[in-house]
Amino acid sequence: MLHYEIVKQAEDSSARLGQLQLVHHLVDTPVFMPVGTQATVKALSSEDLYEIGAGIILSNTYHLYLRPGVDLIEKAGGLHGFMNWQRGILTDSGGFQVFSLSKLRQIRDDGVYFNSHIDGSRHFLTPETVMEIQQKLGADIAMCFDECSPYPCSYQEAARAVERTTQWAERCRNAHNRRDQALFGIIQGSVFPDLRETSARGLTALEFPGYAVGGLSVGEPKADMYAMLDLLDTMLPRDKPRYLMGVGAPEDLLEGVRRGIDMFDCVLPTRLARHGSAYTHEGRITVRNAGFADDFRPIDAECGCWVCRNYSRAYIRHLIKAGEILAHRLLTYHNVYFLTKLMEEVRAAIAQDAFMVYYNGFMAKYKF
Amino acid sequence: MLHYEIVKQAEDSSARLGQLQLVHHLVDTPVFMPVGTQATVKALSSEDLYEIGAGIILSNTYHLYLRPGVDLIEKAGGLHGFMNWQRGILTDSGGFQVFSLSKLRQIRDDGVYFNSHIDGSRHFLTPETVMEIQQKLGADIAMCFDECSPYPCSYQEAARAVERTTQWAERCRNAHNRRDQALFGIIQGSVFPDLRETSARGLTALEFPGYAVGGLSVGEPKADMYAMLDLLDTMLPRDKPRYLMGVGAPEDLLEGVRRGIDMFDCVLPTRLARHGSAYTHEGRITVRNAGFADDFRPIDAECGCWVCRNYSRAYIRHLIKAGEILAHRLLTYHNVYFLTKLMEEVRAAIAQDAFMVYYNGFMAKYKF
Repeated sequence: MLHYEIVKQAEDSSARLGQLQLVHHLVDTPVFMPVGTQATVKALSSEDLYEIGAGIILSNTYHLYLRPGVDLIEKAGGLHGFMNWQRGILTDSGGFQVFSLSKLRQIRDDGVYFNSHIDGSRHFLTPETVMEIQQKLGADIAMCFDECSPYPCSYQEAARAVERTTQWAERCRNAHNRRDQALFGIIQGSVFPDLRETSARGLTALEFPGYAVGGLSVGEPKADMYAMLDLLDTMLPRDKPRYLMGVGAPEDLLEGVRRGIDMFDCVLPTRLARHGSAYTHEGRITVRNAGFADDFRPIDAECGCWVCRNYSRAYIRHLIKAGEILAHRLLTYHNVYFLTKLMEEVRAAIAQDAFMVYYNGFMAKYKF
Repeated sequence: MLHYEIVKQAEDSSARLGQLQLVHHLVDTPVFMPVGTQATVKALSSEDLYEIGAGIILSNTYHLYLRPGVDLIEKAGGLHGFMNWQRGILTDSGGFQVFSLSKLRQIRDDGVYFNSHIDGSRHFLTPETVMEIQQKLGADIAMCFDECSPYPCSYQEAARAVERTTQWAERCRNAHNRRDQALFGIIQGSVFPDLRETSARGLTALEFPGYAVGGLSVGEPKADMYAMLDLLDTMLPRDKPRYLMGVGAPEDLLEGVRRGIDMFDCVLPTRLARHGSAYTHEGRITVRNAGFADDFRPIDAECGCWVCRNYSRAYIRHLIKAGEILAHRLLTYHNVYFLTKLMEEVRAAIAQDAFMVYYNGFMAKYKF
């Protein structure tokens, strides 16, 4: 179902080069997972993602459960068949979306009542139903149903969420029986070191094949996020993959890798694209700005992607101003390529015993 | 600049197989030209269009003149450089858009005043400025500035438009001096046979390298359109390419080819895609309909396009319902491919002395 192997442990940091053998694909880590919320990485086709070199994508259980419904996707041969994607897929648990998107939610120890953000219909999700849903979706990796604390939140609230998340994780583990799917546990605890410790201890005792760090990058100071990662780096088993949820800014990917994180996901590259922004090796640019109107250079002179080889900033700006959806596609392609290649470069640097050299070089140039 | 040669004249109809040598591409005719209004065939990249096999696209002078402006496009190396498209381009004259899109227009013999549909700004276009604009855009084929009569319109109005269109055509011919660009004349005359004759006589006397039929498919009965085409088939020089403007329904392409038309353009395949509809060999289907929710077949079982090889009706319907722009892209790709292949099949049929056999077979199966 899932086999993780460390190919090389860096000496200059906690960074590690690894391989994650999934049913559908062999994924080199550290890896960035583009987000395909509604069974599509917005504006991109599966073929685009193959060309970019994406090895695993994330899709959202909450959204797919509400639309088009999991039974339909199961009938289509699971998410892989439905969206025609033959590499890795990870589905989240829906927990984060239930807490951030839905309305009138009511959290109980047995599960969560919530109203759909689409049509207001009432639903009840439990650790058991979330396992059933994710097993029907059939991703390579499923996630435990968790309670994601907002930021800021009180110590008591965070403690309650940790307790519940651990109890739910055990129920998820017991309910999960699909052998070709790996189930990861999620560590919560907000920015409280002792709660993160408690959560990590509770989760690792359940012996999951991989561990995610949830509830970070939700508004807390960066220093707090890094402190939590430093702490967890000492607590999480080294021989299991580690996934930092919802993190995707280039600088944060490097900070995560440095602290032993293997997997990341984030909507940022696709969302920025929809807002007319793009990554470059010198920092983010807003292509829609008037200053790019007659700039016939590619988005990023150092990028070798299909978009940068063929289209100019001036043309893409025109598409944005004219409301043409090709603009979204070109910017999304570039942004996802940018993060995918960034992780490729990171892996090459670890392989050459030069992760921190790469880290320092990138950080010196990239304005954020 | 442009060389047209008839490869084969059908004996069963006025259909003809031809080759149009443009500066940028050798185009086999009859051909369908996808419309890239704002320097982009909505949702498709140039690479998609190469893959589909499109040899020439149409772009709209009116839109590009208003946004991003022709000087910018000229700086980018013309439309070819700006949108990174290395095959044929035809730009229309802007006449149709001035009459259909803009506001507060005032037609005079020297030109047309109108207000931009984008920001309301006031503009004045003359045959001479339209030539200047199209020469800066640098398409392989430019069109004369014409007055397109609405339907219905009185005989007097149509006669006035024919007269003006012929006068403007002469001024266009005199003002046009770009050697690597061909200039086509446009025949008007609404549904009045004698006005169409007058227009054809006036235009052909000016000896353009190609002739377009304008002012059809604007609401008139199909029988009227076919009657005008039958008439013009007898009047237009056989050794010049003939272009039926704004026509793109599959059945009308075949009706046009049968009457000696070589070139077509239409926004229909891209517009239908945005509305969730697709062509199949059995007629149009509305993929967004609930009946396709669990239909895991391709859009068209007889189609070999990238979309039909990879994605199901159920998946595309989900994308439409979820508001995902990949839906537009997949449907647009398929629809443009469908019409491009239809014309390939038409050419093969003419080559095999079997155009009417193909025509009858298609019409018997295609519901419209």
